[in-house]
Amino acid sequence: MHSLLEVPEAKYARAAASPLAIARALAEHFAQSAVERDKTGGTPKAERDALRQSGLLGLIVPRELGGLGATWADTLQIVREIARADSSVAHVFAFQHLLLATIRLFGNPSQWRPLFEQTAGKDWFWGNALNPLDTRTVATRQDDGGFEFDGRKSFCSGAIDSDMLIASGVDPASGKLIIAALPTDRAGIELFPDWDNMGQRQTDSGSAAFHRVRIARSEVLAEPGPLSSPFACLRPLIAQLILSNIYLGIAEGALEEARRYTLGQSRAWPAAGVDSAGKDPYVLSTYGEFWVGVEGARLLTDRAAHALDAAWVRDLDLKEAERGEVAVHVASAKVATTRVGLDLTSRMFEVAGARATTASLRFDRYWRNLRTHSLHDPVAYKVRELGDWALNGSHPTPSFYS
Amino acid sequence: MHSLLEVPEAKYARAAASPLAIARALAEHFAQSAVERDKTGGTPKAERDALRQSGLLGLIVPRELGGLGATWADTLQIVREIARADSSVAHVFAFQHLLLATIRLFGNPSQWRPLFEQTAGKDWFWGNALNPLDTRTVATRQDDGGFEFDGRKSFCSGAIDSDMLIASGVDPASGKLIIAALPTDRAGIELFPDWDNMGQRQTDSGSAAFHRVRIARSEVLAEPGPLSSPFACLRPLIAQLILSNIYLGIAEGALEEARRYTLGQSRAWPAAGVDSAGKDPYVLSTYGEFWVGVEGARLLTDRAAHALDAAWVRDLDLKEAERGEVAVHVASAKVATTRVGLDLTSRMFEVAGARATTASLRFDRYWRNLRTHSLHDPVAYKVRELGDWALNGSHPTPSFYS
Amino acid sequence: MHSLLEVPEAKYARAAASPLAIARALAEHFAQSAVERDKTGGTPKAERDALRQSGLLGLIVPRELGGLGATWADTLQIVREIARADSSVAHVFAFQHLLLATIRLFGNPSQWRPLFEQTAGKDWFWGNALNPLDTRTVATRQDDGGFEFDGRKSFCSGAIDSDMLIASGVDPASGKLIIAALPTDRAGIELFPDWDNMGQRQTDSGSAAFHRVRIARSEVLAEPGPLSSPFACLRPLIAQLILSNIYLGIAEGALEEARRYTLGQSRAWPAAGVDSAGKDPYVLSTYGEFWVGVEGARLLTDRAAHALDAAWVRDLDLKEAERGEVAVHVASAKVATTRVGLDLTSRMFEVAGARATTASLRFDRYWRNLRTHSLHDPVAYKVRELGDWALNGSHPTPSFYS
Amino acid sequence: MHSLLEVPEAKYARAAASPLAIARALAEHFAQSAVERDKTGGTPKAERDALRQSGLLGLIVPRELGGLGATWADTLQIVREIARADSSVAHVFAFQHLLLATIRLFGNPSQWRPLFEQTAGKDWFWGNALNPLDTRTVATRQDDGGFEFDGRKSFCSGAIDSDMLIASGVDPASGKLIIAALPTDRAGIELFPDWDNMGQRQTDSGSAAFHRVRIARSEVLAEPGPLSSPFACLRPLIAQLILSNIYLGIAEGALEEARRYTLGQSRAWPAAGVDSAGKDPYVLSTYGEFWVGVEGARLLTDRAAHALDAAWVRDLDLKEAERGEVAVHVASAKVATTRVGLDLTSRMFEVAGARATTASLRFDRYWRNLRTHSLHDPVAYKVRELGDWALNGSHPTPSFYS
Repeated sequence: MHSLLEVPEAKYARAAASPLAIARALAEHFAQSAVERDKTGGTPKAERDALRQSGLLGLIVPRELGGLGATWADTLQIVREIARADSSVAHVFAFQHLLLATIRLFGNPSQWRPLFEQTAGKDWFWGNALNPLDTRTVATRQDDGGFEFDGRKSFCSGAIDSDMLIASGVDPASGKLIIAALPTDRAGIELFPDWDNMGQRQTDSGSAAFHRVRIARSEVLAEPGPLSSPFACLRPLIAQLILSNIYLGIAEGALEEARRYTLGQSRAWPAAGVDSAGKDPYVLSTYGEFWVGVEGARLLTDRAAHALDAAWVRDLDLKEAERGEVAVHVASAKVATTRVGLDLTSRMFEVAGARATTASLRFDRYWRNLRTHSLHDPVAYKVRELGDWALNGSHPTPSFYS
Repeated sequence: MHSLLEVPEAKYARAAASPLAIARALAEHFAQSAVERDKTGGTPKAERDALRQSGLLGLIVPRELGGLGATWADTLQIVREIARADSSVAHVFAFQHLLLATIRLFGNPSQWRPLFEQTAGKDWFWGNALNPLDTRTVATRQDDGGFEFDGRKSFCSGAIDSDMLIASGVDPASGKLIIAALPTDRAGIELFPDWDNMGQRQTDSGSAAFHRVRIARSEVLAEPGPLSSPFACLRPLIAQLILSNIYLGIAEGALEEARRYTLGQSRAWPAAGVDSAGKDPYVLSTYGEFWVGVEGARLLTDRAAHALDAAWVRDLDLKEAERGEVAVHVASAKVATTRVGLDLTSRMFEVAGARATTASLRFDRYWRNLRTHSLHDPVAYKVRELGDWALNGSHPTPSFYS
Repeated sequence: MHSLLEVPEAKYARAAASPLAIARALAEHFAQSAVERDKTGGTPKAERDALRQSGLLGLIVPRELGGLGATWADTLQIVREIARADSSVAHVFAFQHLLLATIRLFGNPSQWRPLFEQTAGKDWFWGNALNPLDTRTVATRQDDGGFEFDGRKSFCSGAIDSDMLIASGVDPASGKLIIAALPTDRAGIELFPDWDNMGQRQTDSGSAAFHRVRIARSEVLAEPGPLSSPFACLRPLIAQLILSNIYLGIAEGALEEARRYTLGQSRAWPAAGVDSAGKDPYVLSTYGEFWVGVEGARLLTDRAAHALDAAWVRDLDLKEAERGEVAVHVASAKVATTRVGLDLTSRMFEVAGARATTASLRFDRYWRNLRTHSLHDPVAYKVRELGDWALNGSHPTPSFYS
Repeated sequence: MHSLLEVPEAKYARAAASPLAIARALAEHFAQSAVERDKTGGTPKAERDALRQSGLLGLIVPRELGGLGATWADTLQIVREIARADSSVAHVFAFQHLLLATIRLFGNPSQWRPLFEQTAGKDWFWGNALNPLDTRTVATRQDDGGFEFDGRKSFCSGAIDSDMLIASGVDPASGKLIIAALPTDRAGIELFPDWDNMGQRQTDSGSAAFHRVRIARSEVLAEPGPLSSPFACLRPLIAQLILSNIYLGIAEGALEEARRYTLGQSRAWPAAGVDSAGKDPYVLSTYGEFWVGVEGARLLTDRAAHALDAAWVRDLDLKEAERGEVAVHVASAKVATTRVGLDLTSRMFEVAGARATTASLRFDRYWRNLRTHSLHDPVAYKVRELGDWALNGSHPTPSFYS
């Protein structure tokens, strides 16, 4: 269908183009096959390799370590750009950066510095095997201070075809969550291509099995460790803000798609008494609603990104209340993008018309992708958190979801 | 996967079981393969044949003509019952009755009486090729008073595998819509298996071509003719009320499916502090919203059916204002079922959780089916019609959509 | 402003006119001064006396006891009729019947039969001093089996100018709520004209004080007693359904008022490009939304009334599950009328325009009345109850609010 | 009740305090009597004089002309600050700046420079008599190039107690709207204290009569004249953005008021099973909804202000498309603040409870003020404009309302 040769952004182009320009070119390229790949599902191997070649996998890796040194605001803007065209690829691309942040926030410099450097230098793609709600993987402490992981893990987005993994298990002795960074080809790791869902079909968010997998002490992210400080607690906020940007990107992509269709294909309804769908008073008011919704969600999302950047540079000086403020901004963005996106991706058909339901267009993928992804954690509890803030002045309690 | 032999309602069972009991058994049967057939699309041949064998195709045919003599309220209740399990089959089954109503309302007794009798006696399945918005089929008047149909027609639900067709063409001389009832195997009729949409995937709502198809004068439904009286203008109201019942059936099916999943599979969200999803305050409030919505829509829909029945027996005595009142009831049901159904089929995932998005369940088919079908004609114009009634006391102007 | 002489329905007219006709005439009469009385607040003495003279205070009193023998459906229809014009008077009129129901459900025949007979014969107006959430009134058991009530009570709707009271106190010995029926002029009862609220301004829902008020044993409604059986537990359902009918009546009154204004006074907005407000596409769609909402709420409310009537005649044979089913119907009506009414009474201004805000019209009273009255108990918990039913199949747990 | 002596910001304080600090102090002062003044209506004379003394009437007057040289962003922030406490005073204060902008945009430097200078120097309060939809005032051209105004004018906010007026009449010869700046005490001007509305009760938005009022040629704002350039067309955008800020201020004030009440006065509902209202899951989710809504609206409103400031400094260089972009931002803010504000001011009672409806609190004033003010022009047409932009790429067509 498409080959890497068609991707204009090969490694040697990195120096010349801005990351955003590279991302836009990639997104345009991904868009051409998005409909077909939504149908087939599976691993977007070509697209993953294109991302490897693009240099964008080191987006947030500091320049001194060979990366692009992007801010979170820039990184998330690029996530959104890709999500407009393909929210599955956007997901695994965004989680690349979430996993890098995990190393940065939970690990010590002797861990994250070389891992960052190699990620940028070798274009490593990171995969996820961390799901803290799935406690079936047992992490047994070894005499050398390392662990042995044994058991299953679900929702391992982007683990297949990854170079490195962030994995977790529960230490039965301490009850603690042990998080480690290790090569995907480590003996005993089995990744199942069993992700077949109604949406986000190319995220490979299937299951994995650890068969007595050895983890070296140096691979365990224990110093300072998970959620060990307000700074470390930025991790769930990055996750949530990634989701917001993907939802928003889906909504923006759907709006643009709807617009093209209404202008190019939709017919005026006879009872409207107008000569084109673009003049129908109800079509116009629906687009107006879309606009207000998307604009508000976009501003909330962008503000949260800037707040995150400000908190990120504070490092371990970040105070609990400062982290709490970022959490409120992120939650606001999450709620708004979820609501606006679900509304838009469902009602886009009302401004396109019956013929827009043809399977060849797969316009339903916007709703399916957003509906699937927005269940990551219940939006009702984000609303509740915001209420606790608005009423009681209480910041969200840090957890892997707040 | 399933065979007709497994369907308990064969012809000889007709006398014993009530139509509703037969329909429920069929619906249960259809439900077993609904997920698979949503995937494959195409013609639900086995299900269509089961309907033929069930005797339900003559549901509204009077008993004296060999049918079951059901009211519209009963007929629509059965449509809804089937739609809970399979809204594609419900669609073609419901349109069977819309097409019979078309013959009854637009034709004369020497036309509808024998056609009704044969439908009941031979278990004819009627297909649709009437779409009045598609004016590409030319109906050229012949010397013998008949017509020759030539050209294409879109949205021909249930035409494939039908025994008889209701078709339309435009007479270039008069500009009038010519509607005829004719055998599907008439020379020159070509039906394309080209329906491949995101929803209602087994309705075969694809296209047809008429290659100089001869229509006898006696096959033309010209006396009293389309929309020729308030009584004849019940036709679009039957169509709209069928849609409402299908939307409501989809919503009811989705609610029941969601309920089963929440109770059986969903996990309590940690932050809820409860031990089962069924105690989560936000899960409960969402189900409460679903309930109020569905109940209100159900009452509106049932009321409209009773109003239709009362108008139906009035025959040509039906007054314009009486028809108008039915139209208002039908439009109210249409708007409510559309709104409630779209909301429920999208938010059902919020009470089921992320794992309910697995493709094996295909829970998204409820939304895809309803979203697709609810674009039959713009709901915005139904709302406007109701506003014109509520404010100006003007009944909807009869047309093929009002 | 208006005198009783102007009320056409005096006692001698009772025999001739139907209760509904009498209520309509009264409502029309009340409407003429509703704006002024909303401004002044206080006791609607003339209107209360007109109700006394009308014979409607014995609406649900059986004919053999001298009443009109109306069903609950009829009674609530009349409440709604009055609420269209004046929701304050509708409130106290409806509570008359709630208090009669309280005697019937909580008392024994030797109590309710004579009280019903005297109510019908002497046109007694009953007042409320029961608020179970206000536990400040102490009921001390006396040697003769009676009680002495001492303390304050809030939200005593219609107590001022009443002939009889239903009052409650808490027995410190048993912790039980003691409910009694007694004459309003009993020594020690003090009623304060301290109700001054933003809505429902003539309900006199102010406070009362009991100064060592003696209650005879025969006045205590202890056999079978409060909420003592599924039948007795119809009491809160009657209360809730009264609220629904008042909310619906307010919405219907507001819709009719808005309609008159839009047609008679509103100007077309220049950008609409139409020559009258009644042709504006957005005005029409808003009226369409109003219509669908009100119609659905009306059907739910009427259904609940019929279910209540069916339960009411079952007397002590009423089963818990049967009572539970009525509770579900009532809660559905309550939620729908609250939502629809709040939306309509706020958005009615959008179809009337800026000039409709003039204080002389007091159109805001519809919203103020509904907003105030709909806080009787939180609608969120009605939604939750419905969710518990829809999901878990659990009927609402009987209480004074469920 | 309160005297000017209690206002800490007298003229001599101007130099020391920032405008925002002055505004906050004034708002706090206004808040103390806001409830009482909402009841009485009429002219807020003391508050108007306090504004005169505060120096804030020259907020947007450049420093070189004696004013405070504030940006529009700063000015609107102050409008919002005052609106939180008193939206009537905020209205007339904001219109002061709209009227100054009118002079600036429609007049020539020899007009606006001295008028600005005198406004700042003499603390002139400007009143509005411009309503372009009311065409009853005839402007007859005189031989000297001046006009004579004769006829009525409605919605003259802040004209009573003003020092200067912006008035309009229609020239029957040209059909053009003639706008003039003139002293309020000019012979022949009659201002009626006839504003008595359900909301915004102290804006004096009543009627005026011009009895053959002489307007000098130099008082007519004809060069460059009304809506004469993209720059001049900023005038309606300023008006609309003022409205947004007032709506947002009302919403913010209501949210703060609700919060105080829930925390200090509301009781936990028994069925909630919590010990304070602040822990009720539905109270929390409602506050969460409020928060997301207000935050989104605030960002949209602030962005529009910054866009306005950027356009304002462009002066006559401002291009049509640039003005169009500001118009889109302003319309987005208008729609969002209207929606969010109406929702919040109605639902605030659901988190406060029944007792919050007491007339002494007048919490309903938030809804009454917003409901009244939000009818300035139909929000439906703002939504339509945004739809025309989102779909067709068409900027709003400049008019006095777009």
